[in-house]
Amino acid sequence: MPESFPVTDRTRLLREANRAVYDRDVICRILDEAFVCHVGFTGPDNQPFVIPTMFARVADHLYFHGSAASRMLRGLSSGLPVCITVSLTDGLVLARSVFNHSMNYRSVVAFGYAQVIDEPAEKLAALQAFTEKLIPGRWNDARQPNEKELKATSILKLPLTEVSAKVRTGDVEDDADDYALPVWAGVIPLRLVADAPLPDSRCDPAIPTPAYATNYKR
Amino acid sequence: MPESFPVTDRTRLLREANRAVYDRDVICRILDEAFVCHVGFTGPDNQPFVIPTMFARVADHLYFHGSAASRMLRGLSSGLPVCITVSLTDGLVLARSVFNHSMNYRSVVAFGYAQVIDEPAEKLAALQAFTEKLIPGRWNDARQPNEKELKATSILKLPLTEVSAKVRTGDVEDDADDYALPVWAGVIPLRLVADAPLPDSRCDPAIPTPAYATNYKR
Repeated sequence: MPESFPVTDRTRLLREANRAVYDRDVICRILDEAFVCHVGFTGPDNQPFVIPTMFARVADHLYFHGSAASRMLRGLSSGLPVCITVSLTDGLVLARSVFNHSMNYRSVVAFGYAQVIDEPAEKLAALQAFTEKLIPGRWNDARQPNEKELKATSILKLPLTEVSAKVRTGDVEDDADDYALPVWAGVIPLRLVADAPLPDSRCDPAIPTPAYATNYKR
Repeated sequence: MPESFPVTDRTRLLREANRAVYDRDVICRILDEAFVCHVGFTGPDNQPFVIPTMFARVADHLYFHGSAASRMLRGLSSGLPVCITVSLTDGLVLARSVFNHSMNYRSVVAFGYAQVIDEPAEKLAALQAFTEKLIPGRWNDARQPNEKELKATSILKLPLTEVSAKVRTGDVEDDADDYALPVWAGVIPLRLVADAPLPDSRCDPAIPTPAYATNYKR
């Protein structure tokens, strides 16, 4: 894999181009932190669909649950053109002017052709990646999929070839004249936190809560 | 507005239909809690685009920043067919089987035709909704938009007519046979929290941090 993705007509940012990032490590970190991606595809009559779904990155592919998209995809041997978008919200940016209010965020947009996975071994690897992404250590504790479950699971994959990120971090950016205004300005950081695990109502109290759940951190 | 949205071919859930919600109040609460929506539209050659952007609901319309989409939209007097999707992640669901691992989430999908707003008064109202949604009380403190800024702001609106939510809450759902397995099962709740506000590096220390920033809660 290249260390950065090539800039294409579709991944070149026209607005706020200074926020564009094509670096592979930055993009992978965003993809690995986000739980949910938004899969866009075009239905009949040019109708766009955007479906939120769980996903995981494995090397240079995104794997995602694809029940909605896979109905459309069956029979499209070339694959379904998709746009997969991921976004993380990191803070509220309170500028002196309304116009310069913003958010700190990290987002990734990936274009390409998604394919249905049919090979059981690849499906199993994708399910392992989903599970370990949710919570590392879980795969070995849970009952692993049987043949019937593997068949019932619809998973698609997208090769990461045309990808870009957009990142805003740091301070307020106000117009020069506005810095003199008597208006408080700053950033309110946001982050996703985990609370204490809640055992299932039918969970045997004799089974200890695993450390990976008790100490879960994003 | 009706108390619930009609079910259409596009908003009828084919999978996990028990998670479908058409109730207006539930849908509005999800829309009002999420900071970012994912706007899907179809570009040339059937290419889907999914762009994350800030948005706000005002009565029965969604307003969203629309620089990318509005380039395509200019000249389309009928409006641009869009799919706007919002998702919130509420928890990790650790089942006894890998297959039944899931997330607790709330998502909304809205279909329709987006229009560019040209009327300055409506633009101003949309900017006020964006600002007050980010942080209630801010609009009156910040410098409000001037004519040039209003012109430079590209805002689109989508009427809420064909909308559905999908919600998963609560406990693990395992297969009957799996409840006897000696595997811990439960939910790890997730939530977005705000940390203490960070004043802008050029913020006059004599200006007190407003209470709406210090006490900010999602």
